[in-house]
Amino acid sequence: MKYDRIYNFSAGPATMPVEVLEEVAAEMLNYKGSGMCVMEMSHRSKVFQGIIDQAEADLRELMGIPDNYKVLFIQGGATLQFAMIPINLMINGVADYIVAGSWSKKAAEEAKKYGRMNVIATSADRNYTYIPDGSDLPIDTDADYLYICENETIHGTTYPKLPNTKGKVLVADQSSMFLSRPCNVSDYGMIYAGVQKNVGPAGMTIVIVREDLIRKDLPAWTPIYLRYDTHSEHGSMYNTPNCWCIYVCGKVFQYLKKIGGLTEMQRRNEEKAKILYDFLDGSSMFRGTVEKAFRSRMNVPFVTKSAELDAEVIAAAKAAGYDNIKGHKSVGGLRASIYNAMPKDGVEALVTFLKKYEAEHR
Amino acid sequence: MKYDRIYNFSAGPATMPVEVLEEVAAEMLNYKGSGMCVMEMSHRSKVFQGIIDQAEADLRELMGIPDNYKVLFIQGGATLQFAMIPINLMINGVADYIVAGSWSKKAAEEAKKYGRMNVIATSADRNYTYIPDGSDLPIDTDADYLYICENETIHGTTYPKLPNTKGKVLVADQSSMFLSRPCNVSDYGMIYAGVQKNVGPAGMTIVIVREDLIRKDLPAWTPIYLRYDTHSEHGSMYNTPNCWCIYVCGKVFQYLKKIGGLTEMQRRNEEKAKILYDFLDGSSMFRGTVEKAFRSRMNVPFVTKSAELDAEVIAAAKAAGYDNIKGHKSVGGLRASIYNAMPKDGVEALVTFLKKYEAEHR
Repeated sequence: MKYDRIYNFSAGPATMPVEVLEEVAAEMLNYKGSGMCVMEMSHRSKVFQGIIDQAEADLRELMGIPDNYKVLFIQGGATLQFAMIPINLMINGVADYIVAGSWSKKAAEEAKKYGRMNVIATSADRNYTYIPDGSDLPIDTDADYLYICENETIHGTTYPKLPNTKGKVLVADQSSMFLSRPCNVSDYGMIYAGVQKNVGPAGMTIVIVREDLIRKDLPAWTPIYLRYDTHSEHGSMYNTPNCWCIYVCGKVFQYLKKIGGLTEMQRRNEEKAKILYDFLDGSSMFRGTVEKAFRSRMNVPFVTKSAELDAEVIAAAKAAGYDNIKGHKSVGGLRASIYNAMPKDGVEALVTFLKKYEAEHR
Repeated sequence: MKYDRIYNFSAGPATMPVEVLEEVAAEMLNYKGSGMCVMEMSHRSKVFQGIIDQAEADLRELMGIPDNYKVLFIQGGATLQFAMIPINLMINGVADYIVAGSWSKKAAEEAKKYGRMNVIATSADRNYTYIPDGSDLPIDTDADYLYICENETIHGTTYPKLPNTKGKVLVADQSSMFLSRPCNVSDYGMIYAGVQKNVGPAGMTIVIVREDLIRKDLPAWTPIYLRYDTHSEHGSMYNTPNCWCIYVCGKVFQYLKKIGGLTEMQRRNEEKAKILYDFLDGSSMFRGTVEKAFRSRMNVPFVTKSAELDAEVIAAAKAAGYDNIKGHKSVGGLRASIYNAMPKDGVEALVTFLKKYEAEHR
């Protein structure tokens, strides 16, 4: 491949569009005649203000974000959001969580510190291989919000349909599916995503939150950095943000617009996922671990008959230039993450490799 | 200049070594044969573990960090540290602060949320143009630590000598002087620095903290991301860190080692600062705003006789390729930040420009 690059199936940080990396490299010593690198720019400068404004405008256009939603760029990853969400959004001190995998479980555990956290549905009984039915959930009358992780990166599941919140605010962690398909933002009170999976480099979370949910009457001990109003009132620049990440994400937004936006991205992602799932469904050596209706188009976990064979395949794949297909340490097996930036060629090449491996090791 | 770069006197994010930017650009599409960019690497991969380990080892070597100190890479900037420090280090619920400028003031205000915060010395009386005498401070018997901002970026002051803590733990914000000269780490309980001033791109704070100060018995509401033990026990990778920033900072550490370490860096910084201060002391148009004994070698604030003339000089300087010499909005005037990566040539060129301006506008 160009630049001797390999196909990288990492679950995050993850592969990025080559075009974006080329542009970033070309602008390293002198960004558009500014005489400096973006890493060197004052975040209070006009040139950087232009970068962050353009990034937000492009994201709003891509997702069709309504005007009554704020877009915030916050450091600390999803892990910090696990605390910021209950601290900022709990009014009654109650929230409902659907626990459908490792990430929603972690979020639920953190929320317990700040009020009454109800797990109102879970798929723990079958090792998180499906998404619980969300059509008639026992929503708490006092619940300030219903929380979901819309695509579970480790278990490889996704919501085929959003749960019925019965009028409550829906909060969704979209980290591993962000911008992978069109999204009706109005269905949510808040969407957030660590950008290191489907957008850019690690070190930033994008928070899209309905304005009326941003409160000022928070507990007195709330750190100023953990208040959504801090970030909202200062255009994500109360303090120095992750400027580099905003710049690179902005490039990815431009790239997505150029290729045809989220409708085209969805078409490509479904095409790629079908290639891999069709292979798994027809294989006698490999099989997907998730119930079909809940399969993620982004993270595809699969197994062989044994952990030993899993390990052999992973090693052989790495040697052949298909890296990071090892499953998460908490679940084992194999996993191919095929985010937006993974080309169809990469998925086809992986399938060809796995087919050949299967033929040779029958 | 090469690449048509300009001299950038920004207070942060700030200028970086050209050699580092060249290396980073060259490795963008394929880092050392890994087949991917550092932004695309799993933080759990061997190649990234090598990058973070090397960065920490080089920093330890540069500063001579003793083995009983942990080095942590944390997102959220100094602003998040303003809360993390009292949350993590207060045992008795008491801390003493020296308020010698905007940044120590902000830190002190945040600390109030978590216990009894005593301002035991301040230079507010003369608009923060000096550092209060620290030889015999009224340290609180119960104080868990004494907090200082060792170099005030906005006011351009620095501590000529560390205060006498009378046996208490010293916590220092070194953001705008980090790695600018040798530092005896054992004099401190904790040193921290937002890296976007003297090291690399924004989005990360380096925390150097004595192991015995990292506690587990924290308030129940403490977000998991805000606990030093979370970061310490997971090698700064409890969750995905700002991998890119760690990589670039690591390059800067290598660069500092190559040029001769912090002793050589100090020599260069003192030489550069002398050029600028000597000019200011001899000028009839410009004058430094800080009392001589407390002048920062990193941030040099100065003024003319009027705000109007200040503005004219700033505009003329920008047009001539000397950017970001406007003082912080809270204090006005002019300021040249001459961090590690600002070459002597840049300071000389700025002085030549200011001399010429003075001669032409007498």
